[in-house]
Amino acid sequence: MNQLKLWNQLENWKKECYWVDMTHELSPETPHWVGWDALTVEEKMTLDGSIFAAHAYTTVGQYGTHVDAPNHMVKGARSLDQIEIKEMVMPMCIIDKEEHCNSNPDYILTIDDILEWEEEYGRILEGSFVVFKSGWGKRDPETMDNLDDQGNRHFPGWSKESLEFLIDQRNIASIGHETSDTEAPVTSGQTSYEVEYYMLDQDRIQLEMLKNVELCPPVGAIAFCTFPKVKDGTGYPARVFALCPNAE
Amino acid sequence: MNQLKLWNQLENWKKECYWVDMTHELSPETPHWVGWDALTVEEKMTLDGSIFAAHAYTTVGQYGTHVDAPNHMVKGARSLDQIEIKEMVMPMCIIDKEEHCNSNPDYILTIDDILEWEEEYGRILEGSFVVFKSGWGKRDPETMDNLDDQGNRHFPGWSKESLEFLIDQRNIASIGHETSDTEAPVTSGQTSYEVEYYMLDQDRIQLEMLKNVELCPPVGAIAFCTFPKVKDGTGYPARVFALCPNAE
Repeated sequence: MNQLKLWNQLENWKKECYWVDMTHELSPETPHWVGWDALTVEEKMTLDGSIFAAHAYTTVGQYGTHVDAPNHMVKGARSLDQIEIKEMVMPMCIIDKEEHCNSNPDYILTIDDILEWEEEYGRILEGSFVVFKSGWGKRDPETMDNLDDQGNRHFPGWSKESLEFLIDQRNIASIGHETSDTEAPVTSGQTSYEVEYYMLDQDRIQLEMLKNVELCPPVGAIAFCTFPKVKDGTGYPARVFALCPNAE
Repeated sequence: MNQLKLWNQLENWKKECYWVDMTHELSPETPHWVGWDALTVEEKMTLDGSIFAAHAYTTVGQYGTHVDAPNHMVKGARSLDQIEIKEMVMPMCIIDKEEHCNSNPDYILTIDDILEWEEEYGRILEGSFVVFKSGWGKRDPETMDNLDDQGNRHFPGWSKESLEFLIDQRNIASIGHETSDTEAPVTSGQTSYEVEYYMLDQDRIQLEMLKNVELCPPVGAIAFCTFPKVKDGTGYPARVFALCPNAE
């Protein structure tokens, strides 16, 4: 490879591409799974009393836009520090079911949804990051769980069959969604997080609570799903962003 | 832009490039600045008692391989959440002074070092991430501070003049180093972190405590300096990695 070829590509990206930050801001107000405490911030030093300003943060790993490692559900499976950099950089395919989810918040993505997508955009690439676009990333923390009168959560999710298809038939690298669970609560209430377990048991990471999915194209972008290298980590707040080609 | 051009580039990287993780593992044992407590981990759920394993982490922002935002030292300056994605992705130039640092641990990088580098590799690119290679990233946490008999720290650093040159004459985007401070302690003891203040006062981030710098080429790589999007954050553990061209 020409030693400066990558620099030329980077230079061209400035003209031909745009960046999308697919990450919720990280703070005590960040949307998160119903079972966790909010992140807390402690002031360690301030510029009024010191030459530095610094804070200490306490957060559960699975907070806000975050990565789950296989060992989040599978005993003896890989932890965050064992995920390689090349597994964080993937071609991104976005399956848009936002309209369906608007009319049915319990919507469950099917194999037919994938096949329909492929008719329009082509076969899902091996090694892809496949994102379920539900529109949920545009919601407030208060309305993300979409509680009914009985306090039950209602949001969309993947079917186990759709993930089996993406793994077995397409050999994808990872999945992402805007919600706080892999499956719709209507499923997980019945199945003990069977869909999420299936995904993590494939020795792959997944990304949850994505944002700004609607700013990305269905095909052609590169997703960077990055996170601190946490020893033995089962999950951690991530920085997910995409390099997207300008429309022609 | 051809809508699949980026995917083709990504495919070519697999053959023509390699990834380097420039990040220390994040744990209570991670090397960090002398003034901070170690990161702590609290078990929230385990696979013995629950279907999930999850942990809560407490860490100061400037811990291990980390980013500093301008507001770490400058009142009213930008915080981590205000740094754009495009500022995290940069051409990387590595100035290798490891031999000098081995023989003189108080080595301070000079403008002449930069000019000498440019004679060999060409002019430092505008928007670059310029890394000072000292070899310090190979050290144990115990030997990074390199204490003398009086307990004073001894490690290399940037001169203020060298940073003024890189900003004023080359308009670089950011700097990185393997040590826990921008300047050598022999300087900071005398100058109240004047060199680090100068850098952050330029409205730019900096990356500290890098690792594996020796695995990257002096020119031609793209650095990805990523970190969670911490609201009002002055610093946070980062994931820094590089896409490097294979030798021809």
